[in-house]
Amino acid sequence: MEETIRRFKEHLAKQHAYEHALGVLYYDAETVMPRAGGEGLSRTIGVLSEESYRLSTAPELKELLQTLLENKAAIDWVTQREAEELSENMERMEKIPMEEFVAYQMAQNEASRIWHEAKVNNDYAAFEPHLAKLIEYQRRFAGYMRPELPAYDALLDQYEKGLTMETLDAYFADVRAKLVPVIHAIKERGRKIDDSFMQKQFPVWKQRKLSDFIMQVMTIDRACCAIGEVEHPFTTGFNKRDIRITTHYHEDNLLSSFYSVVHEGGHALYELNTGDDLFCSPLGTGASMGIHESQSRFFENIIGRSEAFLRFMHPKLMELFPEELAGVTPHMLYLAANKSQPSLVRTEADELTYSMHIMVRYALEKQLIAGTLSTKELPAAWNALYREYLGVDVPDDTRGVLQDSHWSGGMFGYFPSYSIGSAYASQIYAAMEKELAVPTLVEKGELAPIVAWLTERIYRFGCLKKPAELIENACGAPFDPAYYTEYLTKKYSEIYGL
Amino acid sequence: MEETIRRFKEHLAKQHAYEHALGVLYYDAETVMPRAGGEGLSRTIGVLSEESYRLSTAPELKELLQTLLENKAAIDWVTQREAEELSENMERMEKIPMEEFVAYQMAQNEASRIWHEAKVNNDYAAFEPHLAKLIEYQRRFAGYMRPELPAYDALLDQYEKGLTMETLDAYFADVRAKLVPVIHAIKERGRKIDDSFMQKQFPVWKQRKLSDFIMQVMTIDRACCAIGEVEHPFTTGFNKRDIRITTHYHEDNLLSSFYSVVHEGGHALYELNTGDDLFCSPLGTGASMGIHESQSRFFENIIGRSEAFLRFMHPKLMELFPEELAGVTPHMLYLAANKSQPSLVRTEADELTYSMHIMVRYALEKQLIAGTLSTKELPAAWNALYREYLGVDVPDDTRGVLQDSHWSGGMFGYFPSYSIGSAYASQIYAAMEKELAVPTLVEKGELAPIVAWLTERIYRFGCLKKPAELIENACGAPFDPAYYTEYLTKKYSEIYGL
Repeated sequence: MEETIRRFKEHLAKQHAYEHALGVLYYDAETVMPRAGGEGLSRTIGVLSEESYRLSTAPELKELLQTLLENKAAIDWVTQREAEELSENMERMEKIPMEEFVAYQMAQNEASRIWHEAKVNNDYAAFEPHLAKLIEYQRRFAGYMRPELPAYDALLDQYEKGLTMETLDAYFADVRAKLVPVIHAIKERGRKIDDSFMQKQFPVWKQRKLSDFIMQVMTIDRACCAIGEVEHPFTTGFNKRDIRITTHYHEDNLLSSFYSVVHEGGHALYELNTGDDLFCSPLGTGASMGIHESQSRFFENIIGRSEAFLRFMHPKLMELFPEELAGVTPHMLYLAANKSQPSLVRTEADELTYSMHIMVRYALEKQLIAGTLSTKELPAAWNALYREYLGVDVPDDTRGVLQDSHWSGGMFGYFPSYSIGSAYASQIYAAMEKELAVPTLVEKGELAPIVAWLTERIYRFGCLKKPAELIENACGAPFDPAYYTEYLTKKYSEIYGL
Repeated sequence: MEETIRRFKEHLAKQHAYEHALGVLYYDAETVMPRAGGEGLSRTIGVLSEESYRLSTAPELKELLQTLLENKAAIDWVTQREAEELSENMERMEKIPMEEFVAYQMAQNEASRIWHEAKVNNDYAAFEPHLAKLIEYQRRFAGYMRPELPAYDALLDQYEKGLTMETLDAYFADVRAKLVPVIHAIKERGRKIDDSFMQKQFPVWKQRKLSDFIMQVMTIDRACCAIGEVEHPFTTGFNKRDIRITTHYHEDNLLSSFYSVVHEGGHALYELNTGDDLFCSPLGTGASMGIHESQSRFFENIIGRSEAFLRFMHPKLMELFPEELAGVTPHMLYLAANKSQPSLVRTEADELTYSMHIMVRYALEKQLIAGTLSTKELPAAWNALYREYLGVDVPDDTRGVLQDSHWSGGMFGYFPSYSIGSAYASQIYAAMEKELAVPTLVEKGELAPIVAWLTERIYRFGCLKKPAELIENACGAPFDPAYYTEYLTKKYSEIYGL
């Protein structure tokens, strides 16, 4: 058995190396690579992903997995879970022909490149055929992997195990029923919030200093985490000692990068605090996209947009922007950071209307994958839903259907994770508050006990436990979305004096 | 034969993909990776370089090469040269046991990491055992590859085919004999050059704008070339549409980054202008390190430090730094950029004393590889040679033996390329001047005809032609180092009124 484990770990290390290299290639492409590098990159991704596919479906691995899974009792927990994960992954991968898998990786890289240009040029027509191709691939892959499920359920399952349209339809209906009245009440009788004092120019070099400060407050170890600049912020990681967050600086919008850094910092904390026993293991990452987003949105919103945090940040902001923010009080910052207003762009949305943006994407993805909506019809459908759900008119595709990078990255079924993650976060917060005086800590900028609490209950397990187990572990109860709608209703009723 | 060529090209594409991925990993490590990422990186480099080794020595490749080389007449020039290059490479690689090759790649990555820290901390002792290990590997590899040659000659040959200690001893003796009198004359009776007006603070964000301008003037297409920031500037490339130059900004030294960008820009122009038929081919790069450095040093010194170029740059510099450079004339800039003064740091050295720095390294490398000097004795030997060749006392190892990245990168035998490259550049310039009115063009900022001239005679061939053929091609005569010493003697005699 020892020899089997040794060979298994050797195989894991190889697979990890290819994922690491492909991960760095993607990160580099987003942050540094000159535009024309795309063609050469595509070829290289083709070669490496072919080898990666081979490794993940190799007959030697199959044999090793069989021996390990037949002798679970004789092996440690980490190895056991690694074997389970790789076995599941192999089952999925084996059903996808290698040529299709490799062609898809290259098509996805190409689509990403085209999307970047299309977004800048407000040119949906250039992106449309690439999007259609990716959807076609995804639909086919879903059929290969889980022929017994509706295609979209198979895709949802990749990001949040067991999540289905049935669950989500009910979840979103509930969220909509509870939050739409609050949104309407704010519009009709909420007090007016003035955030015009934020309409200044905030030099990028000062915003960079602010990012450094935020990362320090969040206890992010810079020896293990870099920050890069991109069009559309994201986080990636290759192992717990090499995590990369990104942001985008807008001179005329201080809060945009501020909350990007806090959001991506939440993702980073999760990865940085996975167990040392999971270093370079396939388990050394988040348990699911929902759990991952629960952490980013916990830090972004529940911590980052709390009055306590803005009180703590106030002196630093005044030090960096003494002229720009002259006369601004912590409470004014708090209101500005929480001003609720139906808007066009998801990543700039306030906490309350945020899930409406997700619902638009959810409704459209279901139809795109089912084949009842074509990519040609998509912009019109997008604009119609923004009118219906958010009451806004979309002026161009750049701020409409082209705004997010997810679809160009082939990620269909990912968006619901943001909303589910926000709901997880509210429930986790309720549990945490019973043990920690969160606002008191936050107001002093002491986030370490909060990170320690999350590490103990969630982070250190990486993928050892499933999402549902982690929620039980953290909250002592199964997932309950009521925490989310209650948290938002209470917060926004107070802010708007409803 | 068609089928053989097809399979050969497929194999080349695979090898290229691994080199591309490893190249991006190295670039990322230097520019972005957080410090603690080194361990995970080392593992990944281990896996990928093992596969890269396997590909470059694969029995299938051997068969293909044999068929191709036996049928040279039936194949095109590019394929023929590719087959020759890969065949030579295979011969070398086959002699190195794979385990040693992989262990060396990982040791080199580790040594690089340690060197970075050692340089910052002025801690040679931390770096010394790693350096000793790399030298041991290099000596052994030299013996494997070319057992018939002295080890250092085998290493020189890797960077400049056919270059030997015999040639270099004579070359350097000549350079020294011709230039030392000029250096002494300047010290004794040269006019004094005042460059105190450059001792100002030049904000980095403005220097970044200057870099953009320089790259534009140099006709570097930003869609194919990125610029990054590192401790020790270098250039790398993965194919002709994805080249990366780097620089380091010092707030108190405007000319440092200025000339880094021009130097690295010269390397970039070479790679960017290799032929389209060499895209992603192993031949799509510089013919040798000497030829490569001839281009960087041509642009840095012959163009960049010419009075014409500084006249052209003057308005831009005044626009960016109106207060810092108030009252500075183009001629004052020219003198400041060419002030000759024996100094401690190679990359900051003036053109005249530059080769003295190279001679120090050449003398030490010969002994290190021959085993007549130990790494423990190295700093003292370094300091003694700086006193002897340059008349300066080395105050610490950071500005002494630890200053360059080359040895930590396992590059022994590379340094002479800089001096040989400078000599090539002088000869190329003499040939170019017969056909182009270089100073007139440079003073107007019109570098395109110069780049076109170099592309026609050198760049487009990539590795299709050997260094000696390229020099013949460009100059109509074989290499003659007299151009170099004459160029420097004339230039510095004028500047210092000798």
